[in-house]
Amino acid sequence: MNALDGLVNVLRQLPGVGKKAAQKMALHLLLGQRETLQQLQNALVQADSSIKSCSLCGALDVTDPCGICGDAQRRSDLLCVVPTVADLWALERTRLFKGRYHVLGGLLSALNGVTPDKLRLAPLRARAEKERWNEIIFALPASVEGASTIHHIIDVLKPVLPDAQFTKLAQGLPLGGHMDSMDEGTLALALKGRARV
Amino acid sequence: MNALDGLVNVLRQLPGVGKKAAQKMALHLLLGQRETLQQLQNALVQADSSIKSCSLCGALDVTDPCGICGDAQRRSDLLCVVPTVADLWALERTRLFKGRYHVLGGLLSALNGVTPDKLRLAPLRARAEKERWNEIIFALPASVEGASTIHHIIDVLKPVLPDAQFTKLAQGLPLGGHMDSMDEGTLALALKGRARV
Repeated sequence: MNALDGLVNVLRQLPGVGKKAAQKMALHLLLGQRETLQQLQNALVQADSSIKSCSLCGALDVTDPCGICGDAQRRSDLLCVVPTVADLWALERTRLFKGRYHVLGGLLSALNGVTPDKLRLAPLRARAEKERWNEIIFALPASVEGASTIHHIIDVLKPVLPDAQFTKLAQGLPLGGHMDSMDEGTLALALKGRARV
Repeated sequence: MNALDGLVNVLRQLPGVGKKAAQKMALHLLLGQRETLQQLQNALVQADSSIKSCSLCGALDVTDPCGICGDAQRRSDLLCVVPTVADLWALERTRLFKGRYHVLGGLLSALNGVTPDKLRLAPLRARAEKERWNEIIFALPASVEGASTIHHIIDVLKPVLPDAQFTKLAQGLPLGGHMDSMDEGTLALALKGRARV
């Protein structure tokens, strides 16, 4: 296999990249002055050496503890549990949440063999004993896996934080969502969670 | 800007990659054992040092002349002119064309300031004097730019190859294409180019 096919094959391993897209990317990197190729090389070296997982929350940052865990301005009595770092980033984009996070690294799933020991639950319990949150918000998908993950975490945290409130994100129609294009599950949840106007 | 944002920004420069996709890719590269990150680093270094543009046809390969130009099994009397390396690869995937290629590096466009000197026309003329093709196939898009590029190239090559045939790819309905989902331009071309059954 030559270096060109090698590059295309590695690019295909990236999420959402098929063969054609990988070929386009390889061409973009290899044609012309190759500035992007050099920049990508440097960015990879830089990121690999400087980005680490936060030992507390599991987010990625150049420091450990990460910028969020180390930020004294953020509320330390409020925790938001997310499946992945991508979900943490999505919530951060709203600029609304001012508490701390905990990244689980996935969801419990008997089907996919994700048992409690595969998730970051030990660090969560350890944090709970020190940080003593008043509220734990679950930002997990409304699926069987999401629900069983919530129940398991409540079982883990309840003995440590008997007075804490456990909440989850509201469900309903997305902003700008038209009823006729929405699935029945979402409609049912929107109806069930209806609020006074 | 930290190393994470740096990596996301470079990934966004790749074709078809927006902010969210770049973040997903960065996460994929940085989480876990980072095997893909190492592989991508190596593939970039390998590709950068070993892949060159063919000085004859303009394709990318580990050798110069490239594998196609150097392949004695391929017809040397037949040339296919393509705008980009991606178009060459698309034609190669059909495994039907057994001649040589010439990559222009774009199309003439007054609008975008692409003048004849910006395309690989000098190497094309030089090749014509040596290779003396019998047929030159234009695999260019059916656009104003495509048509004016064809006319310009014929003007360039006619004095050198007065007896050569100039042809272009057939136009019509794509395979599996339904008439009602096709634009009128394609339908008109399909009608004009109709063949006996």
